[in-house]
Amino acid sequence: MHLPEPMVRLIESFMRLPGIGPKTAQRLAFFVFRMDQKDVTQFAKALESVKKDITFCEECQNISDTPKCKICQDPKRDVSVICVVEQPRDVIAIERMQEFHGKYHVLQGAISPMVEIGPDDIKIKELLHRLADERVQEVILATDPNIEGEATAMYISRLIKPLGIKVTRIAHGLPVGGDLEYADEVTLAKAIEGRKTL
Amino acid sequence: MHLPEPMVRLIESFMRLPGIGPKTAQRLAFFVFRMDQKDVTQFAKALESVKKDITFCEECQNISDTPKCKICQDPKRDVSVICVVEQPRDVIAIERMQEFHGKYHVLQGAISPMVEIGPDDIKIKELLHRLADERVQEVILATDPNIEGEATAMYISRLIKPLGIKVTRIAHGLPVGGDLEYADEVTLAKAIEGRKTL
Repeated sequence: MHLPEPMVRLIESFMRLPGIGPKTAQRLAFFVFRMDQKDVTQFAKALESVKKDITFCEECQNISDTPKCKICQDPKRDVSVICVVEQPRDVIAIERMQEFHGKYHVLQGAISPMVEIGPDDIKIKELLHRLADERVQEVILATDPNIEGEATAMYISRLIKPLGIKVTRIAHGLPVGGDLEYADEVTLAKAIEGRKTL
Repeated sequence: MHLPEPMVRLIESFMRLPGIGPKTAQRLAFFVFRMDQKDVTQFAKALESVKKDITFCEECQNISDTPKCKICQDPKRDVSVICVVEQPRDVIAIERMQEFHGKYHVLQGAISPMVEIGPDDIKIKELLHRLADERVQEVILATDPNIEGEATAMYISRLIKPLGIKVTRIAHGLPVGGDLEYADEVTLAKAIEGRKTL
């Protein structure tokens, strides 16, 4: 291939990212070579910073660069409703619709026996701990509308019901088998609006 | 958006790359967050290294991490033929076919009055300088088959012909494995014009 070593290493790094094959990686590496020094330095710093400076919010388990995330710190958020999602990306999707004003809980995954992820491997214990707060009146289960997400929702609802807290599941306005983060705002709004008591 | 600052910065950096929109950038940033520390450090280093350690070969102007690139250093390459291309990527494409054993000259662009790139802005002077070597017998112009590439080829051929060196242009025609009915008129006309006796 007669490419300089630093170029080869950058192409290899780009190829580790999802959806980036050898041709795209090569294209991106050449683009970086032509980029401003300033922008490349910023890029490299941003990469390291994401690993170094981001942690999980001690309350909702979402990603955060402070011990408590911005949403958990916000006094205007409604503490009586907790929306349970699988991933930080799901929080972004729901925030984008600007209709939910409660708090979140990020499970950081879903129960999936096939890949050996059990209830103890995701942040369910942390959720139950938060429910000790008497102000919590409803838990909305907004895990993905696929097999793992449904199973996780069922599992959590069985744990919470005995506590006398209302448990709801977002409606199947979302296409089954889809990915929550890719849902459009309207569909997502309908799904939350049509939630049902489990 | 309620995303931690380091995440936002990384998403912005990814969005500067060609063909990467906000959703893909976000997906990549989250992926980086989950990557091994080791791989991220390597990625960041590779980025900086591409800017810091790569320069241009003093002979062919291709990218290189040594003063002379690997191809120019290779004593097995045929010094009598120089293949002139626009970009380092073009060298990779021609090398991939493993049938050209001469040397290269990378112009680092093409003449394009529309974006104010003149003959002095690309490496034509450096090419002429190399032709002082009496061993050079042929210059193959392999600039892109578009307006800028054609203009650049014409310009260079007029400079070289008086020197008594053979100047050739790569053939135009139908791509192998293509469909005649989908070929555009210009390509088809060139293909017929360049027909060969069987």
